[in-house]
Amino acid sequence: MSKYGAYVKFTAKSGERQALADILLEAAAAAQTIADCEIYIINVSDDEPDAIWVTEVWSSAEAHQASLSQPETKESISRAMPLIAGVESIPVMPLGGKGL
Amino acid sequence: MSKYGAYVKFTAKSGERQALADILLEAAAAAQTIADCEIYIINVSDDEPDAIWVTEVWSSAEAHQASLSQPETKESISRAMPLIAGVESIPVMPLGGKGL
Repeated sequence: MSKYGAYVKFTAKSGERQALADILLEAAAAAQTIADCEIYIINVSDDEPDAIWVTEVWSSAEAHQASLSQPETKESISRAMPLIAGVESIPVMPLGGKGL
Repeated sequence: MSKYGAYVKFTAKSGERQALADILLEAAAAAQTIADCEIYIINVSDDEPDAIWVTEVWSSAEAHQASLSQPETKESISRAMPLIAGVESIPVMPLGGKGL
């Protein structure tokens, strides 16, 4: 089965980027125990003062989809939503390389 | 020192994506021994038939820059160049998360 990857760009409401990053970093800490979540890295961009990019790799698209219905995920999303102005995702399929 | 990350989108010339992916996967295999290169994952996109996305994380921007002047890197680039129609990069600064 193919792995599933994505670059997810969150645009925070003005002044809320750090608070949103903190919630995403908590979600990343919780992901340490989820075997199907292989990579979940929180990044900022110097060029885009309100942007947070999350690099995700999952064992499969199904595992990623299933994670969205977990109570912990829903709780994180509900806390993050008021801080978010927009979300865009670039889905990718990892072929291989260093760090997988 | 801050880590350096990037999502680098290579657009292959028509019909050349697999050949370009093979060169990038070879570069990723060579990166296994480069401690400053933490992540170098080769991805394709179902939505963009000529696109290859490379997810990179380096120990610092300086380490990434230094890698570009290595003979092995230059050799890979010279083999890849004839296959490439365009390159765009989204530089990011990793804050933390799973997989770093």
